[in-house]
Amino acid sequence: MVVKVYGPSYASPKRVIGLFIEKGIEFEVVDVDVFKAENRNPDYLKLQRVIEQWLEVEGHKYQPPLYDLIVELLFGPKMGKTPDEKRIKEDEEKLVRVLDVYEERLSKTKYLAGGSFSLADLSHLPFTQYLVTSLEKEYLIRDRKHVSAWWDDISNRPAWKKVLQLYPPPF
Amino acid sequence: MVVKVYGPSYASPKRVIGLFIEKGIEFEVVDVDVFKAENRNPDYLKLQRVIEQWLEVEGHKYQPPLYDLIVELLFGPKMGKTPDEKRIKEDEEKLVRVLDVYEERLSKTKYLAGGSFSLADLSHLPFTQYLVTSLEKEYLIRDRKHVSAWWDDISNRPAWKKVLQLYPPPF
Repeated sequence: MVVKVYGPSYASPKRVIGLFIEKGIEFEVVDVDVFKAENRNPDYLKLQRVIEQWLEVEGHKYQPPLYDLIVELLFGPKMGKTPDEKRIKEDEEKLVRVLDVYEERLSKTKYLAGGSFSLADLSHLPFTQYLVTSLEKEYLIRDRKHVSAWWDDISNRPAWKKVLQLYPPPF
Repeated sequence: MVVKVYGPSYASPKRVIGLFIEKGIEFEVVDVDVFKAENRNPDYLKLQRVIEQWLEVEGHKYQPPLYDLIVELLFGPKMGKTPDEKRIKEDEEKLVRVLDVYEERLSKTKYLAGGSFSLADLSHLPFTQYLVTSLEKEYLIRDRKHVSAWWDDISNRPAWKKVLQLYPPPF
């Protein structure tokens, strides 16, 4: 499963191709020729946009309240700060709302961006791992049938298990 | 020269670590512990900021007029568009101004971000290659002693030569 670089090999993708060759990273170029308007091919746009859309949801809706919870409940106490119960309640309410949206989505597609595991799912792993193993908030995942099945699927991928083995959560 | 991941391995860097393990990419983690304020270490900040600063210069000052020149002189004619001489002149003037700044910088440090080749230099390769080999504007580089030496250095790196061999410029 080498890295695939989508784009016209005669333009900007040469930046990342140059980087991969510098670093000895294996890759494969899937040429997208803008002169043939291949960059406007509906399948290509759909793939790109759906992944981006869920990365945006993670970055702007999911990660902020979850990160705040981690700071309040894990990092803060380690630095001698008392958890702010009001903030914790608000964060949890925000997570409930976004996870309800995930539940709806995951009732239709196996993964966030469709039928295949993508960066959109992967980007949820590090902080959801804290939610499940360190925050005692696993119910947020388990109360939702499809979110729960999705979590079991993505967190059991060999790559993620290897990450946790190499860098076990310190909290 | 494996990829180095700088950051706390217990937080966001796990996203990229997870990705590298999924894709079988070799990497090395240089742990930056935020609890020990290592992310505020002046050497770390300096390294990070200087590279970012020159990536910004490339993205906002260097690439836009150069890309516009390439569109006017190479891509446009291929699509049947007549080059706009006024735009070409303006683009060239903008490039002269930014290359004068590069000349000044490169009279002090061998590479843009300091003594070592970095992403800041690498990101200049794809489009400067067109400037030199396809636009007949090589004089913009050759008129500047330090820019010229820098270009010879970075464009002769084995990785870049391999990129050009694998994906020769089509124009």
